[in-house]
Amino acid sequence: MKKPILADVQSSADTRDIPLAKVGVKGLEYPIQVLDRVNKVQHTTGRADLYANLPRYFKGTHMSRFVEIFHRHRGNLSMPRFLDMLGEIIAELEAASAYGVLEFPYFLEKTAPVSGLPGIMSYRCRYQGRVDCSGAAEGMQKHFTVSVSVPVTTVCPCSKAIADRGAHNQRGIVTVELELGPFFWIEDIVSLVEKAASSPVYSMLKREDEKYLTEQAYDNPKFVEDLVRDVYLELQKLGTFSRFWVEAENFESIHNHSAFARAECGQYTRDYTN
Amino acid sequence: MKKPILADVQSSADTRDIPLAKVGVKGLEYPIQVLDRVNKVQHTTGRADLYANLPRYFKGTHMSRFVEIFHRHRGNLSMPRFLDMLGEIIAELEAASAYGVLEFPYFLEKTAPVSGLPGIMSYRCRYQGRVDCSGAAEGMQKHFTVSVSVPVTTVCPCSKAIADRGAHNQRGIVTVELELGPFFWIEDIVSLVEKAASSPVYSMLKREDEKYLTEQAYDNPKFVEDLVRDVYLELQKLGTFSRFWVEAENFESIHNHSAFARAECGQYTRDYTN
Amino acid sequence: MKKPILADVQSSADTRDIPLAKVGVKGLEYPIQVLDRVNKVQHTTGRADLYANLPRYFKGTHMSRFVEIFHRHRGNLSMPRFLDMLGEIIAELEAASAYGVLEFPYFLEKTAPVSGLPGIMSYRCRYQGRVDCSGAAEGMQKHFTVSVSVPVTTVCPCSKAIADRGAHNQRGIVTVELELGPFFWIEDIVSLVEKAASSPVYSMLKREDEKYLTEQAYDNPKFVEDLVRDVYLELQKLGTFSRFWVEAENFESIHNHSAFARAECGQYTRDYTN
Amino acid sequence: MKKPILADVQSSADTRDIPLAKVGVKGLEYPIQVLDRVNKVQHTTGRADLYANLPRYFKGTHMSRFVEIFHRHRGNLSMPRFLDMLGEIIAELEAASAYGVLEFPYFLEKTAPVSGLPGIMSYRCRYQGRVDCSGAAEGMQKHFTVSVSVPVTTVCPCSKAIADRGAHNQRGIVTVELELGPFFWIEDIVSLVEKAASSPVYSMLKREDEKYLTEQAYDNPKFVEDLVRDVYLELQKLGTFSRFWVEAENFESIHNHSAFARAECGQYTRDYTN
Repeated sequence: MKKPILADVQSSADTRDIPLAKVGVKGLEYPIQVLDRVNKVQHTTGRADLYANLPRYFKGTHMSRFVEIFHRHRGNLSMPRFLDMLGEIIAELEAASAYGVLEFPYFLEKTAPVSGLPGIMSYRCRYQGRVDCSGAAEGMQKHFTVSVSVPVTTVCPCSKAIADRGAHNQRGIVTVELELGPFFWIEDIVSLVEKAASSPVYSMLKREDEKYLTEQAYDNPKFVEDLVRDVYLELQKLGTFSRFWVEAENFESIHNHSAFARAECGQYTRDYTN
Repeated sequence: MKKPILADVQSSADTRDIPLAKVGVKGLEYPIQVLDRVNKVQHTTGRADLYANLPRYFKGTHMSRFVEIFHRHRGNLSMPRFLDMLGEIIAELEAASAYGVLEFPYFLEKTAPVSGLPGIMSYRCRYQGRVDCSGAAEGMQKHFTVSVSVPVTTVCPCSKAIADRGAHNQRGIVTVELELGPFFWIEDIVSLVEKAASSPVYSMLKREDEKYLTEQAYDNPKFVEDLVRDVYLELQKLGTFSRFWVEAENFESIHNHSAFARAECGQYTRDYTN
Repeated sequence: MKKPILADVQSSADTRDIPLAKVGVKGLEYPIQVLDRVNKVQHTTGRADLYANLPRYFKGTHMSRFVEIFHRHRGNLSMPRFLDMLGEIIAELEAASAYGVLEFPYFLEKTAPVSGLPGIMSYRCRYQGRVDCSGAAEGMQKHFTVSVSVPVTTVCPCSKAIADRGAHNQRGIVTVELELGPFFWIEDIVSLVEKAASSPVYSMLKREDEKYLTEQAYDNPKFVEDLVRDVYLELQKLGTFSRFWVEAENFESIHNHSAFARAECGQYTRDYTN
Repeated sequence: MKKPILADVQSSADTRDIPLAKVGVKGLEYPIQVLDRVNKVQHTTGRADLYANLPRYFKGTHMSRFVEIFHRHRGNLSMPRFLDMLGEIIAELEAASAYGVLEFPYFLEKTAPVSGLPGIMSYRCRYQGRVDCSGAAEGMQKHFTVSVSVPVTTVCPCSKAIADRGAHNQRGIVTVELELGPFFWIEDIVSLVEKAASSPVYSMLKREDEKYLTEQAYDNPKFVEDLVRDVYLELQKLGTFSRFWVEAENFESIHNHSAFARAECGQYTRDYTN
């Protein structure tokens, strides 16, 4: 019972009258290249989710096109090129909206504060883009946010204030999400967050560095609330981002759960994520 | 250098003028009890995130109060009691808003379709609640959604249509998020989703069950788009939920990534999550 | 083209002449009950892997029997009953060896050290069992280990020694794996580990507790190496376990990676795990 | 209270008389380069655990040296160079044994079987090495295994045999672990596994490819047991590996748990892992 033609089931008509907000591929793992201030290009590995809307009258989307388009762009996934790619999804899938999420570790060489020895740190980044095409006259509306997660040290101000000696401290993760707008370097966000922490963390530390950081952190105790507010203040001072969100999670050394805080500059909308 | 009193650092004044949207505890693991239609109470294990807003003039929140309040409620975390608990967070932390997320596996005994043998299935559930207190006169505004994730079998309609024999199929996960409103049983949502799939999945299957399900699935091919639309239609027919969201993720057997679709009845807002 | 009988494909002969070390089910999620010193029985949730060997002459195993057997035992998964269950796998699958892994959170109420307020802590546990049946005369050989993971606080002795003020500290996880032999309470292993740490961690702490723990931890600095050795010494003193393994992982507050140490009393064999 | 010198606490004497099997760093994330048959060098991202033994008479190890050594080698982590690196750990830490685990995704371009369109697939790889230095005369003993995980499609032979139409199928993951000895290309192991499956999986497939693969898979039904045995047979035929282990895990489309099988050529020892 050979079937002579390859029916295009996806393009057949649908009568259920339900438009889909998003259809596409999720969890595509790829080697990618992104911009790097020092080395121009950075090789890393990414995980992408790519979706388009599906009008009420089509039964299915053509999933392979998302992979084709992403495959073409893997060698240059700078922020503006990522949005261009979403524009191509709209064009090639004849969609009104396209969505993309791309997560990747971004690596920076960082020298220890006293010994000057080099090590590499990894920072989780996340692009979240949406492009809408509401008609030929107006062109495309683009929305884009970038998240950068920065591990830091935090010393608890309460513990320091009430204890006769010592102060509990721990690793925390600060996540900044920025709405673009203006170009920025991931490096600058990392640096801004690290300055707001009790102290930065490093891959490579010798004893003289450990002494320096222990004292620096002890001299700068910060609640998770302080961390979020101080990062928020610095982002505000930059004056380049009109909407941003700051979160911090502390892996408390005296608990088996985390302390968490979040500040919002501009209402958050869940346009991009799943 | 003994310190004579325990300074309340958290309650000290803050001059940075930045209110925090959320402050609290994240990732608290607890044994909990929830409602169960058959057994009245179900013992399970949960993971909770609990937050309140923090006004601009306070330096920090009192994290231990979240744990105290959750500890009191662990033995009855029905949906209405979960919202009551958020109300207590508002009262005890003198906050304007409280947020809670609770994730837990919900277990159901399910008998195989032909042999009738019993097995237990696990379904991931997630409460997400927000309570706002905007002034004495109006009382509290409550928002509450519940997500239920249901694993199913999906047979690909395209593969069945074009192949001379066989059809690729796979496990998928359908996640329904409902805004309450009305009371409902998790059991009913599970059942509604399973009916919309190519076939349900089970823990315990004998050969006669496997034959039955293989044929049932082959006779009901569904794209991830179909799955979402058919679940959407059934939820619409119920007429009890005014806002809901349906997602499906297929762990494609011919790819190493997933196919994904999402439909939305009512605009989604990210009030609750992090 | 109806198929009249249900062929037992699994039982057909295999000519490839390759025995399989393990065949079975992996990742079965179930509500379970285990022993609890205070409450006699503890309701929790588990994840089980259950395997048997498969002789060279059979094509496949009968996967559903593992689920049937586990389903029967879910209400009493004490350590000896878990081994009994593996014996039933041997009998019902006519196997020479059966293997089982069961992971679950075990919960303990723990009161804060000064305020005395209660909170519940979760400890990851893992049974790993193997039963071999080498012939009717000798009966069954049983091997069984239990792992208990205990989160703790660790203060770095080097940081304390070299810094003029403060000392970096962090959450760590100590995992003890014991070969039975003798009955023991999970509660006692948790307590033994907590005493060997810089300080224990708690879910519920008030300021007076935080002061107490900060000072206790600062007075007891421990490297990850110290932690492992001190737990090892205490286990040795008990004199009840002839073979055990101790690991510690510190989520370093000055790095984004962990420090790790492991000591072994008796050669470790990977009989059970995957 | 300035502390004038940086005490080397780690090098101080220890009297507990407990040697540590392993001490070191865990979870170091780095950009790395490995060998690639087509492109000579492949940029990817890795996660490393590096340990050495610690004699009974030292209090602690010097953790930063592991990072220094790994940092030097990140640009060439071919299999032999990874072992060289472990040799340097022995030399620089004056240890008797060094251990290393390195996990990374390895990427291959793979063209669809009919359309010939390109896509990139990601395969999880894992180096596990151990080097022992038991005395000057004999030099170093080296042990090294490499694991490669390959996603595939599997069609259930039982389901096909008993159902009047269709057959359940799903994604599975085959993991091959090889003890070296001889040099090999990851590409060859991927190819060997894919040939033993019901069919390979791809990132990029058009309808003509989907038809081809659906039929190919349906014509080659395989239990998880068959998959393991057929890979085992092919590895045996190669004749280059004297010890290897093969596992397969099927994400069953009719269950919410996995089917699992494992065959062993040579006794497995857990020398390397944690």
